[in-house]
Amino acid sequence: MQADALVLLGAGTIDVPPSWVRPGAAVIRCQPSLETGIVTYTVIVITITLHSCFSVFISDIEISRAQTPKPVDQLAAEIGVLPEELEAYGRSKAKVQLSLLDRLHTQPDGKYVLVAGITPTPLGEGKSTVTIGLVQALSAHLKLNSFACLRQPSQGPTFGVKGGAAGGGYAQVIPMEEFNLHLTGDIHAITAANNLVAAAIDARMLHEATQSDKALFNRLVPSVNGVRRFSPIQISRLNRLGINKTDPASLTPQEVSTFVRLDLDPSKITWQRVVDTNDRFLRKITVGQASTEKGMIRETGFDIAVASEIMAILALADSLEDMKNRLARMVVGTSRSGQPITAEDLGVSGALAVLMKDAIKPTMMQTLEGTPVFVHAGPFANIAHGNSSVLADKLALKLVGRNGFVVTEAGFGADIGMEKFFNIKCRASGLRPNVVVLVATVRALKMHGGGPNVIAKVRILVAGGCRSNLRKQIQIAHLFGVPVVVALNVFKTDTQAEIDLVCQLAKECGASDAVPCHHWAQGGRGSLELAQAVNEATSRPSNFQFLYNIEMPIVEKIRTIAQKVYGADDIELSPEAEAKIDYYNQQGYGSLPICMAKTHLSLSHMPDKKGAPTGFTLPIRDVRASIGAGFIFPLVGTMSTMPGLPTRPCFYDIDLDPVTEEITGLF
Amino acid sequence: MQADALVLLGAGTIDVPPSWVRPGAAVIRCQPSLETGIVTYTVIVITITLHSCFSVFISDIEISRAQTPKPVDQLAAEIGVLPEELEAYGRSKAKVQLSLLDRLHTQPDGKYVLVAGITPTPLGEGKSTVTIGLVQALSAHLKLNSFACLRQPSQGPTFGVKGGAAGGGYAQVIPMEEFNLHLTGDIHAITAANNLVAAAIDARMLHEATQSDKALFNRLVPSVNGVRRFSPIQISRLNRLGINKTDPASLTPQEVSTFVRLDLDPSKITWQRVVDTNDRFLRKITVGQASTEKGMIRETGFDIAVASEIMAILALADSLEDMKNRLARMVVGTSRSGQPITAEDLGVSGALAVLMKDAIKPTMMQTLEGTPVFVHAGPFANIAHGNSSVLADKLALKLVGRNGFVVTEAGFGADIGMEKFFNIKCRASGLRPNVVVLVATVRALKMHGGGPNVIAKVRILVAGGCRSNLRKQIQIAHLFGVPVVVALNVFKTDTQAEIDLVCQLAKECGASDAVPCHHWAQGGRGSLELAQAVNEATSRPSNFQFLYNIEMPIVEKIRTIAQKVYGADDIELSPEAEAKIDYYNQQGYGSLPICMAKTHLSLSHMPDKKGAPTGFTLPIRDVRASIGAGFIFPLVGTMSTMPGLPTRPCFYDIDLDPVTEEITGLF
Repeated sequence: MQADALVLLGAGTIDVPPSWVRPGAAVIRCQPSLETGIVTYTVIVITITLHSCFSVFISDIEISRAQTPKPVDQLAAEIGVLPEELEAYGRSKAKVQLSLLDRLHTQPDGKYVLVAGITPTPLGEGKSTVTIGLVQALSAHLKLNSFACLRQPSQGPTFGVKGGAAGGGYAQVIPMEEFNLHLTGDIHAITAANNLVAAAIDARMLHEATQSDKALFNRLVPSVNGVRRFSPIQISRLNRLGINKTDPASLTPQEVSTFVRLDLDPSKITWQRVVDTNDRFLRKITVGQASTEKGMIRETGFDIAVASEIMAILALADSLEDMKNRLARMVVGTSRSGQPITAEDLGVSGALAVLMKDAIKPTMMQTLEGTPVFVHAGPFANIAHGNSSVLADKLALKLVGRNGFVVTEAGFGADIGMEKFFNIKCRASGLRPNVVVLVATVRALKMHGGGPNVIAKVRILVAGGCRSNLRKQIQIAHLFGVPVVVALNVFKTDTQAEIDLVCQLAKECGASDAVPCHHWAQGGRGSLELAQAVNEATSRPSNFQFLYNIEMPIVEKIRTIAQKVYGADDIELSPEAEAKIDYYNQQGYGSLPICMAKTHLSLSHMPDKKGAPTGFTLPIRDVRASIGAGFIFPLVGTMSTMPGLPTRPCFYDIDLDPVTEEITGLF
Repeated sequence: MQADALVLLGAGTIDVPPSWVRPGAAVIRCQPSLETGIVTYTVIVITITLHSCFSVFISDIEISRAQTPKPVDQLAAEIGVLPEELEAYGRSKAKVQLSLLDRLHTQPDGKYVLVAGITPTPLGEGKSTVTIGLVQALSAHLKLNSFACLRQPSQGPTFGVKGGAAGGGYAQVIPMEEFNLHLTGDIHAITAANNLVAAAIDARMLHEATQSDKALFNRLVPSVNGVRRFSPIQISRLNRLGINKTDPASLTPQEVSTFVRLDLDPSKITWQRVVDTNDRFLRKITVGQASTEKGMIRETGFDIAVASEIMAILALADSLEDMKNRLARMVVGTSRSGQPITAEDLGVSGALAVLMKDAIKPTMMQTLEGTPVFVHAGPFANIAHGNSSVLADKLALKLVGRNGFVVTEAGFGADIGMEKFFNIKCRASGLRPNVVVLVATVRALKMHGGGPNVIAKVRILVAGGCRSNLRKQIQIAHLFGVPVVVALNVFKTDTQAEIDLVCQLAKECGASDAVPCHHWAQGGRGSLELAQAVNEATSRPSNFQFLYNIEMPIVEKIRTIAQKVYGADDIELSPEAEAKIDYYNQQGYGSLPICMAKTHLSLSHMPDKKGAPTGFTLPIRDVRASIGAGFIFPLVGTMSTMPGLPTRPCFYDIDLDPVTEEITGLF
């Protein structure tokens, strides 16, 4: 990240490395150091040329590296995690065992704060930095226990166009390079599990195509030392098939055939392979072209790893057993007779649980100011629900205790991320939020007010954005009975008049409070006002309620979201969508919650319709289901599940000093 | 693993879980517990039926789990690793920092022992268990410092047909489930790095096909705040192109075109994608079929992750800088004008080093008897060199000190794994081995003596195997000037007469010593004789020499290996092979060592020719190169680089108890 200015809080001198000096620029460096919870700054300003503008070239990774993280076992001790509950991964990150939930069973939960945003520009409005700034303010400055719960970012975009996702400026998770790279391997575990399912699908189709019922049965239920028995996974399949027998010898030939043949319809396999790499050429591929696969070619594709249903399961599971059951229930395709085929039918569900046994434990890191963070799960926010894990939130709520705060973040704008947080994640977890922090920027508000940015009209544009998109997003939170604090993420280009206007209008639109935030430049100190407002808001009553009853018909649930959340007049289902809904109802999936796959760039399905559009009908192009994760996802547009690399990807600038082991170019 | 018998060393009583009891079997359980370095056994024998045969159903994972590993920080302290040099990954494994090499720079190396094998049966002859049994005997019983250096197994086969690879019985690395699963993520890092290269290749071809020179240049060397400059990676490419300019504005249009266009020939891309899953349907695929890729479809394939050149680099690198340079040199394909295109040309080499920065640190674990083990790198033994890492061996040699032992293992039979250990790994590391332990089994010797197993002829068969394959493999080690100790890995079906015969003949064939080993059933105690023999052999002179001078022509190097090691009369090159050798000579790759890709099931290229075949001409079908890893690999047969899943893969039996978190079915 390249900054144009920093707010300076002190003065002093340090050396400026020559690499920071650019022609035509002045250089400023801020050096944070953490002593007893207080951030101090050492600043030097050198005028290199006569230019009057200040340009600061200080990257997020330089800020991150300037602060040595405290040892993770020390952090754990500070927040009450016992040594035996901690599994360190190097010095600055650790997994926390789920047994902590049992130990703290009687401990009251802390307050539960969701950070959501108004409809964003394509650049994002800074929910992650607000989240981190808020916990830094709560913990390090207000001395209230607090925990941030963040999503783990995909590694693919780190090398593509996006760069890091650990927050930014003085509101970061450190070390940011570990946050953005392998971390503790959870996404790699998901990749391995996802692709084992895929390999099992194609291999099974090949084996079924080339073997008789008898040969399949003899191999699937082999005689070991003269004894033939079903494995527990096979008993489960028999039960689902209505064959209540446990002696392999007692099956009729018809039952043998039913048992051994999944009879997957190649055209109805919904399971894709995944890689955690931006590899656009894998979007659509043909597999099975080697002669060893005997002509069983098939079109399929790869998604980016975080789009795997297994990621959504990791985020929603509330115990190891729950995760294992969800993995077993995942539907990978349909048999030729129309029956859903699950991971358990493939015999692979136990192995998936084994591959995911460590991934289910949240990873603990820290902010720049030494306050605790859980990084755990990062499902897509369109085809999945876009929220970090239930388990991290639960653990954190116990750890902070009654007067503490857990701040968790929802993906995209509030119409998507927050709605799914409430209707899907809170339904799975049983947790109830106390307050929503709604992040806005003047930049995005101007866009919603009818930008492009014309100086003369700025005030009108900002007001328009507040009265349209911001108001609507506040109203959405109120549909669920939760109070809203608006956090205006201040950019250096914002004027005081704009800041004042947004805060005033936000309160007029129903926010409990609205405050400017300067966490990017100032860290926790820049979010003190927000922390106080959030603390205040949580003392007010929250009357949380779901938007829809889970037993409503699928179509009615979709319509409710479209009308009440998005502001649509109605929905329109394609014939494919109608047929799928009928099929899901037949299969008993009718009472799952809904996970809309819609653009995040508008409240409507039309990315260029800003503000709070009305008078539109939401088209439902298709409907899909993640049965293991436990939701139905209607497709409102075409969702890309595999990003690409640009002509000059980020990786051109990423390098490692082989002597110091320092990473450069991550930002 | 299912055992038929165990050697019992003590008696006592414990409970037998009902799941161990099978019809028609008696049950024995051995419960090892480690106290002050001594293994004690508690045994119960229950006769369930009147059958006189004993069948013991005790799996490797049950043995592994019965022994709680000591905390890895305690193990580290015992062997002299400082706390700040250790990066724990959970409680029982840790990465060791390379800075330890600097700290122990003046420490003399220990003795360096290579474990190799005779030409194996398809079941393998137990090199890993011999390696572990030997260090257990050296450390826990002879009280000599010792370290085992093992390869990390691919996760794919763990769920396919192979099961675990952590040794077996009472000669295991624990916890075996961590050894066989993600471990510390090194293979996942290789997968990520390998696939980033692949994504960069296809994306680059697409961008070059759709943009003008000028557009490419403007994107590859963008103006940032009015300044346009090359990145260090781009400067390297310019230098290789002979363009010694650093100001982007000074390039001529022709130089711009040369710089921006890699002009990769799609038919000459040698880089494949990888997954760590047995996914046979990915052996040959077509990519780029989505409309977004504009018709740029291409046939390619996936290998299993451990077949990646990056794995071979990890195993051969002797520092972070060396690894980074090797990654940059990797050749991914050829331009239309015949120039090799490297990872650095793609701009991705710094990012690869970043992805691999933790993988380069060896992972420390322990044996069942609490002695230290490094697990690091696991390249294929045919298209690569099949040995664990140079860095793990170097670290271990410093840690054990002058009178200590490092026991490292080479893949396949000695004609392949040992030859590559000497000619490739020792050349890269500068290390010199003191002794070779050559593992043999009566089962394999019978095969080489002309089996199948006919009782009347058994003695003749065993003797035949000794005088053919065993003798030849001993002679191969002597070509390099290294003494040989033969380790006969004893099976319960071996008779004392067979054991005595093998030991006697091995010595007649030139072995310094030959002893039976009972580590599988007895742990270190069962390898005491071997440990004493190895200790004795290392006091003899070793006059190590390479088999060939690196500057010999490629063809002569191949011929030398074929004639002196395999016993071939000569070699025969296909026209493709000749053309490739010419090309590699032109490109300056002529002085790389040779890494033969040959079947491990015979000394010849014909898997069914057992013993020590003679009178054959070795056909060289094709020749390929891993320029980053630093070897030329002639293909003697068709090497599968992607295993498949059988009809009933191992995963059917693998499960996780969600309450105890215990894994079952890994064996």
